[in-house]
Amino acid sequence: MAAGAGLKEDIQESERLQHVMGADLERVSQRVFEVTELSYPVASSIIHEIVLAGGKRLRPLLVLLAGRAYDYSERFDELITAAAGVELLHIASLVHDDTIDRAALRRGKPTLNSVMSTGATILVGDFLFAQSAMLAARTGDVRVVSVFASTLGQLCDGQLLELFDAHKTDQQIETYIRRIYGKTASLFAGAAEMGAVLGRAPESDIQQLRQFASEIGLAFQIQDDIFDLTRDSEGLGKPAGNDLRQGTVTLPTLLFAQRTASGSADARLLDHVVSGDDVADDVVDELIDRIRSSGAIDDARAEAQQYQTLARERLAVVPHADTRDLLGSWADQALASA
Amino acid sequence: MAAGAGLKEDIQESERLQHVMGADLERVSQRVFEVTELSYPVASSIIHEIVLAGGKRLRPLLVLLAGRAYDYSERFDELITAAAGVELLHIASLVHDDTIDRAALRRGKPTLNSVMSTGATILVGDFLFAQSAMLAARTGDVRVVSVFASTLGQLCDGQLLELFDAHKTDQQIETYIRRIYGKTASLFAGAAEMGAVLGRAPESDIQQLRQFASEIGLAFQIQDDIFDLTRDSEGLGKPAGNDLRQGTVTLPTLLFAQRTASGSADARLLDHVVSGDDVADDVVDELIDRIRSSGAIDDARAEAQQYQTLARERLAVVPHADTRDLLGSWADQALASA
Repeated sequence: MAAGAGLKEDIQESERLQHVMGADLERVSQRVFEVTELSYPVASSIIHEIVLAGGKRLRPLLVLLAGRAYDYSERFDELITAAAGVELLHIASLVHDDTIDRAALRRGKPTLNSVMSTGATILVGDFLFAQSAMLAARTGDVRVVSVFASTLGQLCDGQLLELFDAHKTDQQIETYIRRIYGKTASLFAGAAEMGAVLGRAPESDIQQLRQFASEIGLAFQIQDDIFDLTRDSEGLGKPAGNDLRQGTVTLPTLLFAQRTASGSADARLLDHVVSGDDVADDVVDELIDRIRSSGAIDDARAEAQQYQTLARERLAVVPHADTRDLLGSWADQALASA
Repeated sequence: MAAGAGLKEDIQESERLQHVMGADLERVSQRVFEVTELSYPVASSIIHEIVLAGGKRLRPLLVLLAGRAYDYSERFDELITAAAGVELLHIASLVHDDTIDRAALRRGKPTLNSVMSTGATILVGDFLFAQSAMLAARTGDVRVVSVFASTLGQLCDGQLLELFDAHKTDQQIETYIRRIYGKTASLFAGAAEMGAVLGRAPESDIQQLRQFASEIGLAFQIQDDIFDLTRDSEGLGKPAGNDLRQGTVTLPTLLFAQRTASGSADARLLDHVVSGDDVADDVVDELIDRIRSSGAIDDARAEAQQYQTLARERLAVVPHADTRDLLGSWADQALASA
């Protein structure tokens, strides 16, 4: 009964977020749509399909909310522009990710790399980076541009670390955190900082909002990494253990490795599965069972919960009560989608 | 005798350019070196080799000279930073170009893509774009950042057009010009604009310097395209007709196509060579002979000369006589290297 009421409340909250911010988010999508009118065959329609499919638009929403907590109406146009820049930066990085991973679908639509050459896809991704940088510059705020550029650097850093750290089971937890910070949390943190800067928040509030977004981003990615080991292989989408198959060692797997005696059967099984060689499905499933029953998943979940708790406490600084609640709903929505 | 004296003068001029600007250019290279200290195996040393090999450094030199014509000493640090950003943007685009072309060498050194996976090379290129954008932001000038971002967009546009226009012999001259503007002249124009903006030049001078750089860039690329048809295949480096083999239709070839009756033997030979199919060397050589003897190369050369003349006239606005001469030497050096 209590759980049911909580769920209903969550739904109402998320509906309220959509109700209050929906029209502004539409403006953001419109801005993204305009700057992705490309004069090359094929490219434009595919990018537009990805933009229209929408995704969760968590990042532009965060830009707007961080600004709304302070000076919203006066900086409205700059905030819409920055939010569009952040969303486009996200899309550009997805275009390059999909090229690297040779993915066929994105948001249920064919990827660019599935219909164009690798060369053309690299260049279209670069072009979208350029357009997103132009949006950042169009805010007229040097700090926004700086945050934008350093966020792009951190994104690449996270993805490069994922490539170079693949197949290694002796990683430090800190290395894993740096990696997921770059890959996921950095763009959340950058979005919050841009919004708060444009809203003319006091510096200490900017830092708190940045941290809030970063910690929700870390919790989001840890949850996503857990989900890769707990989801039902029978369902739609990727099978369970996709990260393991690719040699990507995530938090639950690292925690499992730490409690495994070197040279033991478990350690050998783990090394074999993440080696990058072709491994039979039942061997991957066996490893997933061992990780599940080791308690490593509960420990990873506790870690995500800790980041989430830290993050939510930071919202106390937000002076505007209504926006503070919406930022809480934003966090719920982000974490529900991981 | 007169020609010999002219040549000697040119050498002295280029030595003077090196003498006056060499130390400042070294600072630029140092700045580029610092921001390319990457914490990933292999990547850092390869990028550093490319940076140290130096190339002609025409673009950072142009940033510095455009600033030097106005307010140099007061804006020195910003100019060095912008020049480093421009050089790094150039290097980042070379990393992606080499990946697309699967090139093995750059400035005589192994390319990143020859020793790393395509995925890692794409990400390192993106990382370098991010670092170059951070340098642009570090100038603290919103217009510099804007020029930077739009230049990146134009670069991608030029390269995408080259991909999509490949194998087509019925292109308009205007399309060719837009393509080489994006591919080559845009970064020259952007470099001049950034330097002049940072040097606090009057707006009309900024526009003249931008045009000067753009026209030298166009002349440079037309010369380079001519050279692909006139160079000796016996020499080092790429064989003559490399563009034709790749299906890239350049100005001399377009001018040749325009004077060729549709359905004639020449027209069929041209279509065959640029079709993208494997074509025997002697067939390519035959086409090169036909283009050479058609007068198309002289006409293309005249076009390059026209851009060059236009460009040099614009230098009259530069108030500082010494820098005006150095900008003239810069143009000589740029055109001598094409």
